[in-house]
Amino acid sequence: MGLLEETLAAILPPDEIAAAEAGRQLDSLTKPRGSLGHLEEIVRRYAAIRRDPEARIGGGALCVFVADHGVADEGVSAYPQAVTAQMLRNIAGGGAAVSVLARRLGYRLWIADVGVAADTRDEALPGVFYRRIGAGTRNLAREPAMSVAEARAALEVGVEVARGAVASGATLIGIGEMGIANSTSAAALLAAFTGLRPARLAGRGAGVDDAGMRRKVATIDRALKLHRAALKDPLATLAALGGFEIAAMAGACLGGAALNAPVVVDGFIATAAAVAAERLCPGLFAHLLFGHRSSEGGHGIALEQLDVRPIMDLGMRLGEGTGAALAMSVIEAALALFHEMATFESAGVSEKIG
Amino acid sequence: MGLLEETLAAILPPDEIAAAEAGRQLDSLTKPRGSLGHLEEIVRRYAAIRRDPEARIGGGALCVFVADHGVADEGVSAYPQAVTAQMLRNIAGGGAAVSVLARRLGYRLWIADVGVAADTRDEALPGVFYRRIGAGTRNLAREPAMSVAEARAALEVGVEVARGAVASGATLIGIGEMGIANSTSAAALLAAFTGLRPARLAGRGAGVDDAGMRRKVATIDRALKLHRAALKDPLATLAALGGFEIAAMAGACLGGAALNAPVVVDGFIATAAAVAAERLCPGLFAHLLFGHRSSEGGHGIALEQLDVRPIMDLGMRLGEGTGAALAMSVIEAALALFHEMATFESAGVSEKIG
Repeated sequence: MGLLEETLAAILPPDEIAAAEAGRQLDSLTKPRGSLGHLEEIVRRYAAIRRDPEARIGGGALCVFVADHGVADEGVSAYPQAVTAQMLRNIAGGGAAVSVLARRLGYRLWIADVGVAADTRDEALPGVFYRRIGAGTRNLAREPAMSVAEARAALEVGVEVARGAVASGATLIGIGEMGIANSTSAAALLAAFTGLRPARLAGRGAGVDDAGMRRKVATIDRALKLHRAALKDPLATLAALGGFEIAAMAGACLGGAALNAPVVVDGFIATAAAVAAERLCPGLFAHLLFGHRSSEGGHGIALEQLDVRPIMDLGMRLGEGTGAALAMSVIEAALALFHEMATFESAGVSEKIG
Repeated sequence: MGLLEETLAAILPPDEIAAAEAGRQLDSLTKPRGSLGHLEEIVRRYAAIRRDPEARIGGGALCVFVADHGVADEGVSAYPQAVTAQMLRNIAGGGAAVSVLARRLGYRLWIADVGVAADTRDEALPGVFYRRIGAGTRNLAREPAMSVAEARAALEVGVEVARGAVASGATLIGIGEMGIANSTSAAALLAAFTGLRPARLAGRGAGVDDAGMRRKVATIDRALKLHRAALKDPLATLAALGGFEIAAMAGACLGGAALNAPVVVDGFIATAAAVAAERLCPGLFAHLLFGHRSSEGGHGIALEQLDVRPIMDLGMRLGEGTGAALAMSVIEAALALFHEMATFESAGVSEKIG
């Protein structure tokens, strides 16, 4: 049994008894019942996923997976492919948005090169794990982006990173990504998995122009036709349309779930990964918290169809895990309220009349 | 010239040149233009209000104003009036939701008793400023809640607290409140100021039942008729329908604006205060950031009519400044990104194609 199968076998449904117990504690705190709104549901979900009615907290880990995409050849991105490696350096160097947020919010940053076109192994970038499946995927508009073996290897990188994060004390894992052209791959995956039309899902990514947008939608339409035989199987779909970093994020969702660590999903690309993970492991969504509604393409439409309520809605569309990071700080605030608020009894506050 | 007039005279429009300069800096950072969404607008607004293109940050202050309301006599609240003083103790003692958030997020808590029915001055509650205008307001369904002199005094308490916060190094001020029955007062004020019907604005407050809701709406309808002569003048309106803590929050909005400190408005009650401040000083809204959309009554409808986009939307309806506190942490994260992200040039990242 491989790491992927072992991980899938270890995933239990969340513990709803723990959620109910945490809910009773929430009702004893000095506030009108339910008045913390979504924060209360966050605490209950956290308790259920952790299988811990006390909802204890350890550290937070932000896991950022970086890789390149052969589909960049179709002219679907506003930036050249070289930017992926440049941003890998920037993330490692502390200057990227996700680096700033991780530092500010106190989350350990896990950076994995899962297959950037340019090989930076000689540069000794601080904190980067090299788990390169290849030098970028193949062009999904012409052939499967990955072989099934490559997709599986990338999934296992995600499992491995999630395991490392939990072993280091994380009880909350955020997932994010960087990879030029990966919003094309993500839109293709979401279209394949949800049945929504590519034209509704595809967005401007890093800011492609109108002509680029038309190429992007046409590319996805073509890919869905080309790979239609693969679309019956989730792993084959992920291999045909996905990317190394997307498969790795899906693996991190599975790896977190297997270790009872809630995984906070970032935006559009990470949502595609989460849906891939759910198709590989039906019910997995119960282990995830969706960080934010991105303004990228049809993220809002996709979240609605998936019946998911994101924590934040700030019109962000940067990726990297930036939305997940902000949402993690809200989750931690919710847990602090749960742990530190007085009860009606301890504070001598009168309960509701009647 | 009194403190109120002096404050009103000191308020300048925000500096849009500073906003534009901050915007240019945002465009130089390693991210697609505009991809931080609302966070970028927050940085520009902060720079404009601070009149500082560098958008430098100091501390955050959470100002919580506490008072009682004579209209509680009408049976409009789910909790007895004694809860106001009990919660004042709980806020000062560190067990209230806003106390937990202030501690966790590193904000100094300013607590002002502006007129709680029960006098706790003998209890030496830590950190409470006693600026009691009275032992609760009068019943707004039968007579003006405050005299104009009392409303002015309460406004000046808010100015004073905002001044103290700024003098202590705060560059960001959150406002919140506690006061049994104050959602009735706030709904009446919002109805008077916006023209929206009380039935659309009034909510369950701390959880009043159906019969209580009918009493609440009828009480507001009655009050609006009773005080219709006062409604031509903003200060008279505030006096007739408001509360000590609501007037104080309005004063804090004005006091912050006069000192170029952005004020973060909490939920439903704080929004009523912000609207009162805007009526006293047209254009004041440009100095405010709205923290969240509360699930209380018609807060969403009111924000829409006021053309305001709140930062968070978490279904919270607790007040105390809890929504403002979470929003302040998002504002600080936005500012950290602004200050700490690399530029395309410094990080050697390629710019957009074409």
